[in-house]
Amino acid sequence: MKPLRFAVTPGEPAGIGPDLCLLLASEAQPHPLIAITSRDLLAERATQLGLAVDLLAVAPGNWPEQPAPAGSLYVWDTPLTTAAVAGQLDQANAAFVLQTLTRAGNGCLDGSFAGMITAPVHKGVINESGIPFSGHTEFLAELTHTAQVVMMLATGDLRVALVTTHLPLREIADAITAERLERVTRILHADLRDKFGIANPRILVCGLNPHAGEGGHLGREEIDIIEPALQRLRNEGMDLRGPLPADTLFTPKYLQHCDAVLAMYHDQGLPVLKYKGFGAAVNVTLGLPIIRTSVDHGTALDLAGSGQVDTGSLRVALHTAYQMAENRK
Amino acid sequence: MKPLRFAVTPGEPAGIGPDLCLLLASEAQPHPLIAITSRDLLAERATQLGLAVDLLAVAPGNWPEQPAPAGSLYVWDTPLTTAAVAGQLDQANAAFVLQTLTRAGNGCLDGSFAGMITAPVHKGVINESGIPFSGHTEFLAELTHTAQVVMMLATGDLRVALVTTHLPLREIADAITAERLERVTRILHADLRDKFGIANPRILVCGLNPHAGEGGHLGREEIDIIEPALQRLRNEGMDLRGPLPADTLFTPKYLQHCDAVLAMYHDQGLPVLKYKGFGAAVNVTLGLPIIRTSVDHGTALDLAGSGQVDTGSLRVALHTAYQMAENRK
Repeated sequence: MKPLRFAVTPGEPAGIGPDLCLLLASEAQPHPLIAITSRDLLAERATQLGLAVDLLAVAPGNWPEQPAPAGSLYVWDTPLTTAAVAGQLDQANAAFVLQTLTRAGNGCLDGSFAGMITAPVHKGVINESGIPFSGHTEFLAELTHTAQVVMMLATGDLRVALVTTHLPLREIADAITAERLERVTRILHADLRDKFGIANPRILVCGLNPHAGEGGHLGREEIDIIEPALQRLRNEGMDLRGPLPADTLFTPKYLQHCDAVLAMYHDQGLPVLKYKGFGAAVNVTLGLPIIRTSVDHGTALDLAGSGQVDTGSLRVALHTAYQMAENRK
Repeated sequence: MKPLRFAVTPGEPAGIGPDLCLLLASEAQPHPLIAITSRDLLAERATQLGLAVDLLAVAPGNWPEQPAPAGSLYVWDTPLTTAAVAGQLDQANAAFVLQTLTRAGNGCLDGSFAGMITAPVHKGVINESGIPFSGHTEFLAELTHTAQVVMMLATGDLRVALVTTHLPLREIADAITAERLERVTRILHADLRDKFGIANPRILVCGLNPHAGEGGHLGREEIDIIEPALQRLRNEGMDLRGPLPADTLFTPKYLQHCDAVLAMYHDQGLPVLKYKGFGAAVNVTLGLPIIRTSVDHGTALDLAGSGQVDTGSLRVALHTAYQMAENRK
């Protein structure tokens, strides 16, 4: 059996990503896990944190077959442009950050890695450096030539995927087209089956309007767009329930028999997910030809180098990537 | 000390409201509680449920000063137009339902009652009977000549109030005006202080857009409307935080130091509230000159007469009305 080997990108070097990877190195992982970042950065940050972590150099052609022992971390050394100071953003390292993502993504495409797990990057400093960058998700979609990806967050047994993501509220209603809804639902359904090992996933779909439109009294998108699109997909055999009112859907009666919730927009689905999963939620990008999971928090610049960080979300991100890759075998 | 006396309206006679009131009568209440409905209806439903409840007739001029003993229920007899069958809506009783609300509301205005608690009505059957009716809230606003009310749901230590309520999603952004936001915030602030006994309430305010607009990248309403309105209110001494991203606001870091959350719209605030408080949430109408709380569920026609109903929400609605009235003294 081919070993499952994973890449983790600590992301923004001035943020908490390097800290989180070093803290997790105190435990052995079930699979080889390779941090793609600067070895010097990790060494300096470990000293700052008072952690003794063996940094084991690896590189293409020299991949490990076994997990690193507890207290050590595989590193594919990727040099910084300029030394990084915890908490201080530096535009000079923007290209470095993107190089770590490129190495991880290409390594997933060429089979070096079974999946990649990303710690946070700082969008602002990358853009200010002159490189247009909307986020990990869009970057990896472009790298892998993927037209449509789907954002899904998960914690415990709750998974919430989104039809639209980072849109101003006033643009959402027009963005909910039958075509987009069908495309997103197909991706969600296929990835739940192929990457999460759920033979016949049941998906609960939120309405767009409060009370799912209440029979047309509070908006007609459910009647005109959502219900017909769901019916076409049901005719293909998908188990889709809804459109349901978002404020009754997130209750045990519905959730206990569901594999994922499909919310129409960001603030309809994610407040519940983050309320339930605070500090232990994972962000999964569906629709990519590769497996990619991410922490659900930001760079937390003020906490970098302090040791006062919570590894909960990175743990869940690692665990989820492992599970997805194991299901995919 | 004047006794605090309360009215409860069982609402739709074919629904579970009568059942809930009868089930709760097995315990003594801390204050006199008067059900405003048909005595015959209650007697029949009690027989159907196999409950022995003493129905004690009361009426204006003959109000009780002490709580009814366990196993009994005060009733202000309000005759049905036609006999009610559990589970079967009948337009003929629409006017009866509204009469019970009128009696309760007027009794609050004239001092007979310190507050009213409502079980669910069925909007559809009232409208089909030819009487235009948008809901309890609007009915009581009109009865009490109140121009603006605010819907707030609460469960445990979480309170969520809404700037907009039952609007199609595509109309929300235009409905978020500085004037409306200020008006709603003032009502929320005043009622937290005057009816909930919180001297200087702290209110967390959600942004309208995902990530609260992310500095204008995901919508400008936070910059152009919300932040200036909050600043004006802060200058009057209100403790308002935000606008905050809805998906990070509902986490312990923020919630532990907050008295209420103000969400911009229904599906931004209520999914978390109902997820947390399933079966034990209360709906409070703020801004009225009277105290009014309600269950957070519907008529559940299919469960009427079955005994398989959860009194959790009505219990919380009663308890909340009692607390509000005690604070108001």
